[in-house]
Amino acid sequence: MNNFVYDIPTRVYFGENQLGNLGAELSKYGKKVLMTYGGGSIKKIGLYDKIVEEIQKAGLELFELSGIDPNPRVASVNAGADICKKEDIDVLLAVGGGSVLDCTKYIGAATYYDGDAWDILLQKVPVDNCLPVITVLTLAATGSEMDAGGVISNPETKDKIGLVFPVMQPKVSFLDPTTTYTVNKFHTACGAADMLNHILEVYFNMDQDLYMLDCVMEGLMKTIIKYAPVALEEPDNYEARANLMWTSTWAINGFVNGGKRQAWSCHPMEHELSAIYDITHGLGLAILTPRWMEYTLNETTVSKFYQFGTNVFGIDKNLAPMEVAKKSIEMISDFLFSTLGLQSTFTEIGIDETNFEIMAKKACMDSVLPGFKPLNQQDIVNIFKMCL
Amino acid sequence: MNNFVYDIPTRVYFGENQLGNLGAELSKYGKKVLMTYGGGSIKKIGLYDKIVEEIQKAGLELFELSGIDPNPRVASVNAGADICKKEDIDVLLAVGGGSVLDCTKYIGAATYYDGDAWDILLQKVPVDNCLPVITVLTLAATGSEMDAGGVISNPETKDKIGLVFPVMQPKVSFLDPTTTYTVNKFHTACGAADMLNHILEVYFNMDQDLYMLDCVMEGLMKTIIKYAPVALEEPDNYEARANLMWTSTWAINGFVNGGKRQAWSCHPMEHELSAIYDITHGLGLAILTPRWMEYTLNETTVSKFYQFGTNVFGIDKNLAPMEVAKKSIEMISDFLFSTLGLQSTFTEIGIDETNFEIMAKKACMDSVLPGFKPLNQQDIVNIFKMCL
Repeated sequence: MNNFVYDIPTRVYFGENQLGNLGAELSKYGKKVLMTYGGGSIKKIGLYDKIVEEIQKAGLELFELSGIDPNPRVASVNAGADICKKEDIDVLLAVGGGSVLDCTKYIGAATYYDGDAWDILLQKVPVDNCLPVITVLTLAATGSEMDAGGVISNPETKDKIGLVFPVMQPKVSFLDPTTTYTVNKFHTACGAADMLNHILEVYFNMDQDLYMLDCVMEGLMKTIIKYAPVALEEPDNYEARANLMWTSTWAINGFVNGGKRQAWSCHPMEHELSAIYDITHGLGLAILTPRWMEYTLNETTVSKFYQFGTNVFGIDKNLAPMEVAKKSIEMISDFLFSTLGLQSTFTEIGIDETNFEIMAKKACMDSVLPGFKPLNQQDIVNIFKMCL
Repeated sequence: MNNFVYDIPTRVYFGENQLGNLGAELSKYGKKVLMTYGGGSIKKIGLYDKIVEEIQKAGLELFELSGIDPNPRVASVNAGADICKKEDIDVLLAVGGGSVLDCTKYIGAATYYDGDAWDILLQKVPVDNCLPVITVLTLAATGSEMDAGGVISNPETKDKIGLVFPVMQPKVSFLDPTTTYTVNKFHTACGAADMLNHILEVYFNMDQDLYMLDCVMEGLMKTIIKYAPVALEEPDNYEARANLMWTSTWAINGFVNGGKRQAWSCHPMEHELSAIYDITHGLGLAILTPRWMEYTLNETTVSKFYQFGTNVFGIDKNLAPMEVAKKSIEMISDFLFSTLGLQSTFTEIGIDETNFEIMAKKACMDSVLPGFKPLNQQDIVNIFKMCL
């Protein structure tokens, strides 16, 4: 059991109509606010107007950067950092889903660097400073609202890189489940697949760690399995949206990690997929997850699958461990592809074998992904083939 | 489902040999450190020497206040605040269990007040400032290491009052499970009863709130039930001590509360007991808990007991809810009094009916305890009688 440092200082306003606190929170950091957002859905749902009103009421000066894409590009990071430098911005306000939040964190960091922001992703320069980031979340998925990480894509090099820098931790996040009412079925399902995979990447680990954290993870997974279908059927069900939103945050804010040595598997594989095919992250994870589970199941790892199957899916504890394990993989497939209705194969989404070798090579960085079961390039190609 | 603000910024160093970070953490706040502790057990286990060494290495100036009692007295708060004012202390270092930590928080607050610290407990003065508090925990029980509350006794008035002030939140806490190896069976058991009751006070609530938090609470309770007996049998079992320590923290740091309207029941009753009889808090809670459960079980509340019994104790879901409920009370009694070996009645610990009326009157503040089931003075007397 390894030591760890728990350090998650983000303050969260959870629930409806909490934006009355936004002006005061922004004002702690200065007068000039850069609001970042995506394609304009926040205008459709009236969120943009509410935020602008609060900023005006607080007497702050508003700057804007819109058009941040899903799988956010380094170009957006550079564009944002340019505004911050030129306008001497004091605080960043990210309004949107994980892509907007991730991009905004790097804008905050890149403001303190004079070159191309991609150098930060390549770890060529240290990241010791970041403008304060406040977020208003509109999608339950990535957990970016309460962690210090972010993933940025570079379409020129077809790379997608995710890093964590403590200075990028959001100071404050506003989580209003009603802002996710308009998230469509597909993105609701992808969000659920994403948060579920965040937990599985930590949970499936043979390091001995705190039982209490396994219990917490099992509880979070049960919550996703219970409420994602409800949110699909009733998009404005507050109970479902609230449970999914707070669960997605805690799936990846670091609490459940404890002292486990962390090495994720599905995420590095999926990042290569999105980098080339620009698919939705949660969809790529959904397709990979059950194949990765099947590929990593063996006599050594079966005990973890047994724990998962009995505690999360309530599979009969009296069955043989290997039987429970296989059944748990069936049940998670069923959840992802039948209940959530996500496409189940690469073929269905137009991905063939063409790039498997290069993606696998990049995913394991020409070496080995040291996760739950270590995966080399051939292993990853094998998993990709299982997804066809 | 109510809104809430999540705000728990305490940084925690969890595990063995983390005190190498203590000097740097203290130094952030200044040069003059007041270390507070209890009766000297920290000297016996070598912790005192380690801490003094780290403080010397960091070039800090050390002041001390020892002799803080269990059920800490307001006299200790005043004594500590006097030192802080006289010596111009920059930062407080509380080393011990919940009593030392609670007392130290109020020392930090009372430093900014010129009168008797009891005025703070009587809420006669606002608490807007507190010296920074850093803690080194040696007992898994109260959760004071990661919350902003504390309970102080006044032997003269026979009052015991607990309040929460955000400014008292510890900046940093060091949680080393090995420091609890020497905690004897009785206090290990009382600690387990305390943390279990902290969760039950929140869990048993008919407000609709986040399912995910109920799942987390069930996980924490399962952890206590699994590991408290192990710690009793093998006091130096790291896995057991670590699980109990981190669970006790999360039982009461505020996370599990969500948006529930909070009104605790057993704690106000127990505080009156300790105020008069100076018993160990966890023991008082242990005796009260199953009686309070029995007293509050009815057709309205049975659904919560059913959830508790099936999810925490694994009682057969096919049984009638009332049967599950009664069985769950039996099982918790069995856990507290047989497994943990705690005394099960007031009579055994020398408490009779003499003060029931006055304690009940104080516990409900001459009105009604508005908890899981509202309890008036007569209800509380009835529960006390069930404990005889």
